[in-house]
Amino acid sequence: MFGDAPQLESTGESSFVRELVRQLRAHQGGNAWDGKTDEELLAPLLLSRQPRPDDDEDDPDVFFRIELFYGAVGLAIEARRGIACTPLLKMHHEGFGRVVLLAGRLVVVNRFLRDARGFGFETLEKLADAGEKLVASGVEMIDRFPEVARHRG
Amino acid sequence: MFGDAPQLESTGESSFVRELVRQLRAHQGGNAWDGKTDEELLAPLLLSRQPRPDDDEDDPDVFFRIELFYGAVGLAIEARRGIACTPLLKMHHEGFGRVVLLAGRLVVVNRFLRDARGFGFETLEKLADAGEKLVASGVEMIDRFPEVARHRG
Repeated sequence: MFGDAPQLESTGESSFVRELVRQLRAHQGGNAWDGKTDEELLAPLLLSRQPRPDDDEDDPDVFFRIELFYGAVGLAIEARRGIACTPLLKMHHEGFGRVVLLAGRLVVVNRFLRDARGFGFETLEKLADAGEKLVASGVEMIDRFPEVARHRG
Repeated sequence: MFGDAPQLESTGESSFVRELVRQLRAHQGGNAWDGKTDEELLAPLLLSRQPRPDDDEDDPDVFFRIELFYGAVGLAIEARRGIACTPLLKMHHEGFGRVVLLAGRLVVVNRFLRDARGFGFETLEKLADAGEKLVASGVEMIDRFPEVARHRG
């Protein structure tokens, strides 16, 4: 599914994690990610794999990581319901933020981030669990308000 | 209504323009806008009052102007339906952007901006007209999907 790239076969990872890895590879589309294992690709989202940045230090990559994570949630929802979900992220000062996934006129996923700079997960299992829960809640919203999710314009 | 500030009494401006002026004053909350007339406050949104920036020149104030304009649309909708609307703005490269107003789980207003850097209106009347149309369309969406607009969480 990912060409010659090494897979996370052994970890029994969720479809959400597979979607996230696929998006991480596709997003860069180039040399930077070639030859990296799935574990290496996911490392920036795992807090244990990286030093926590200083509080007074901005980390521009965190926006990229948050968008990728929620983008993967959106793609996993789309794979299950056939409705495209677009992430929109807004960051305030001091690490506060809001991220939404939008489908038609429906806010499929709605999350406020209290500590965006520290965005990440302690383990791959927690990442998979958080992603799957967001996917499930998004699918539930679409099933509850399908007319709004399919609304155009 | 705006303290001692001079008003646009003579132009028969819409409630949307009044809301926008109120927000422009409140947002700054300080000396910078004191003593300015409503016309002076609105000038940054009027293309005729300002030079068009060069295409290769970034204008950080344009985000502020777009957020204020759509924030005022949201406040005008809230004044009519009692439901708070929050603006979320995403800018891409090359002047493309998207702005939404969200209430509960409803995308009350949804606009793609093709030329965000050139955001503004030729005249105060066109500004008022565009704002009122957005307010009307937002109110219509809330009336159509009230359960979604009032959805919490």
